[in-house]
Amino acid sequence: MVSVGTVILMLPIATEAPGSASFIEALFTATSAVCIVGLIVVSTPDYWSTFGEVVIMGLFQVGGFGIMTMSSLLVVLVSRRMNLRSRLTTAAETKSLGLGDVRRVVTGVAKLSITFEVTVMVILTTRLIVGHDESFGRALYLGTFHAVSAFNNAGFSLYNDSLEGFVNDPLVLLPIAIAAICGGIGFPVLLEMRRQFWKPRGWSLHTKLTVSMTVLLLVLGSAFIMASEWRNDETLGPLSLAGKFLNGFFHGAMPRSTGFNSLDVEQMTEATWLGTDVLMFIGAGSAGTGGGIKVTTFALLFFVIYSELRGEPHVNIFDRQISSRVQRQALTVALLTVALVVIPTVFILFVTDLFSLDRVLFEVISAACTVGLSTGITADLPAGIQGLLVVLMFVGRLGPITLGTALALRQRTRLYELPEGRPIIG
Amino acid sequence: MVSVGTVILMLPIATEAPGSASFIEALFTATSAVCIVGLIVVSTPDYWSTFGEVVIMGLFQVGGFGIMTMSSLLVVLVSRRMNLRSRLTTAAETKSLGLGDVRRVVTGVAKLSITFEVTVMVILTTRLIVGHDESFGRALYLGTFHAVSAFNNAGFSLYNDSLEGFVNDPLVLLPIAIAAICGGIGFPVLLEMRRQFWKPRGWSLHTKLTVSMTVLLLVLGSAFIMASEWRNDETLGPLSLAGKFLNGFFHGAMPRSTGFNSLDVEQMTEATWLGTDVLMFIGAGSAGTGGGIKVTTFALLFFVIYSELRGEPHVNIFDRQISSRVQRQALTVALLTVALVVIPTVFILFVTDLFSLDRVLFEVISAACTVGLSTGITADLPAGIQGLLVVLMFVGRLGPITLGTALALRQRTRLYELPEGRPIIG
Ligand SMILES: [K+]
Ligand SMILES: [K+]
Repeated sequence: MVSVGTVILMLPIATEAPGSASFIEALFTATSAVCIVGLIVVSTPDYWSTFGEVVIMGLFQVGGFGIMTMSSLLVVLVSRRMNLRSRLTTAAETKSLGLGDVRRVVTGVAKLSITFEVTVMVILTTRLIVGHDESFGRALYLGTFHAVSAFNNAGFSLYNDSLEGFVNDPLVLLPIAIAAICGGIGFPVLLEMRRQFWKPRGWSLHTKLTVSMTVLLLVLGSAFIMASEWRNDETLGPLSLAGKFLNGFFHGAMPRSTGFNSLDVEQMTEATWLGTDVLMFIGAGSAGTGGGIKVTTFALLFFVIYSELRGEPHVNIFDRQISSRVQRQALTVALLTVALVVIPTVFILFVTDLFSLDRVLFEVISAACTVGLSTGITADLPAGIQGLLVVLMFVGRLGPITLGTALALRQRTRLYELPEGRPIIG
Repeated sequence: MVSVGTVILMLPIATEAPGSASFIEALFTATSAVCIVGLIVVSTPDYWSTFGEVVIMGLFQVGGFGIMTMSSLLVVLVSRRMNLRSRLTTAAETKSLGLGDVRRVVTGVAKLSITFEVTVMVILTTRLIVGHDESFGRALYLGTFHAVSAFNNAGFSLYNDSLEGFVNDPLVLLPIAIAAICGGIGFPVLLEMRRQFWKPRGWSLHTKLTVSMTVLLLVLGSAFIMASEWRNDETLGPLSLAGKFLNGFFHGAMPRSTGFNSLDVEQMTEATWLGTDVLMFIGAGSAGTGGGIKVTTFALLFFVIYSELRGEPHVNIFDRQISSRVQRQALTVALLTVALVVIPTVFILFVTDLFSLDRVLFEVISAACTVGLSTGITADLPAGIQGLLVVLMFVGRLGPITLGTALALRQRTRLYELPEGRPIIG
């Protein structure tokens, strides 16, 4: 996928100007699109021709679709194996994951994607014609591109300033935010919510956790962004009260791996960057188009600590017990992601002193958690470090899913048990 | 302790100049001394009189002694409770911790402290007379102060540039580094190593883990500092090869919560700062004078991930099995410390834009992990934030120990078990 995309983007026809894109430009853009990250080294509208733009849209549509399908199938695989081993105890839980065969997953994902993308496309196209004086053809093109980009959490935009031009237009920002949140919440949850939206008591633990954490993070994230940017003359400052809430919400939602921006990220305060770092690290829901360690992983770690502080023998969430294996999986995913962020950050600061920690950390988390927000340094990085970001985007995209699945499927048994050891903790 | 120290330091006699110290200056210094952190808001030699300096030395001596004693006693308490519950399986492990009654711990800690401090004091005093032309009285004063400061990992110095004046003197730097490492390795380990230094096979799991991790972190930390500062003209650059190794080792050892510096921390690269952040966060050994999450906690998390990646059903280290309760304790200590670092960092960036992320993060970790290294901003922070650092030093000092103990002692039982739930991870 990435290599095909790279080759196509290197064709002379893909660029606006005569001549063709360099290898690293094409590779970076193709990886960013396929892994639905959204970081860019060249301007999407200026550098690429319409042909190039359509190729990029194709790449992130196929990338998003592929990732949602593949991770959902892996979930089915895991739940099947689970059933064989412990059918009784987990039967209640796996009903949300009994999606049937490959075809059903593929058609399910396709139906959902099309529904969301077409709806948002229609809204955006209409709005661009009515409110922004675009011709029908141009509005349709822009609407389609951004609708697909939003649901797949790609974050690619056909405007050089992303969505900053729509800072006061809720009819553009809200549909995009909602599509992005729904795409990021994950296929298993969407499926279950479609089936029984009005019976939250019957939801599976996974759905309950994902939905409640998503709402909580949106509220807290938006409140934080609003508080830290409220008086910033370059961002929220000049906006009306409604505008402040709209864009605070938008930027509270975008770190959940979407990566559009309606405010200038480079002008935000360091506190906002760091808060956004935390939100990007947590990311979105499992088996969706979002990245990060996933909200369920984060919630689980939170409940592990809570149970430990209360001295509970088990970790219980929503009247379900979490096995110590699942706790270990969550810990492993979270700490390996920490390593995936810290090691490249130290490495980049080590080899170049062009940029400060806050910007480098932001960029690395944005790449590894496939978000695509940027403080504006990506294009200025040396090609070697852009190459490192390509690797990060790839590992960040496939790593946690593959890892989570592999961990869940893998199970060794030991024929003997060792005596217990108790090192001192803390 | 802190309040008594604050009151004494506010006496006019405690300061060099006429008049007395302000409340925040006295409070900060007293807290920094009692919690053996070593961060300062005023110059120790210039601002405080000799009386004030002796008070500070008294505070960090009592602080270090108190912390080593108290945490060792808590370990005994935990091991006693352990024995009652599971005497058979853990008998092999707890032998290193069966220290007897309070009196034995107190005298044991006192003997060890005096042995190390007097040895280092004699070496430093001799060296200061022979190599640095100090009078006997002055050399004895300086030698005593720095020996006590080193073993207790206090990091307070009577030189305005800490130990930068001894950058080329291994006879000063090495004794201090060794005293600091031994003080930080923790009383239970020191006791066991004194008993059977030459029989490492018979060491308890805790001692094996602590010693091997300490050696590993010293080697990796020093190598990293050397690599990232090798060509820095303000730090290692101008030094001879031996000087590079000496000071690389010294600065690889100091983040283990000692806090002396022989190189100018402010002139180091951002990569070094970040690497030092990681070392400070990990910290030293349990029940010693060091801080951080402790090397055993870090090692345990590492092995949890390793076992998970290999698909092992249990976490085994050095032929001992680690219970899931202990794993949860380690996770809890580590993640709460992450929160203790991230939340104040975001908060400080939120309320002031005087300093950049790299410096604020360094200062917060230094305070919370009781290290005392600084990029030079502590004195320039607003009084409110200095107050926040006071709280951080206090919580960072007592938090993990108290927490670890409380978690180990606390044990609830549930009369019923809930069915298992399996949220999707990653
Ligand atoms: K993205
Ligand atoms: K210290």
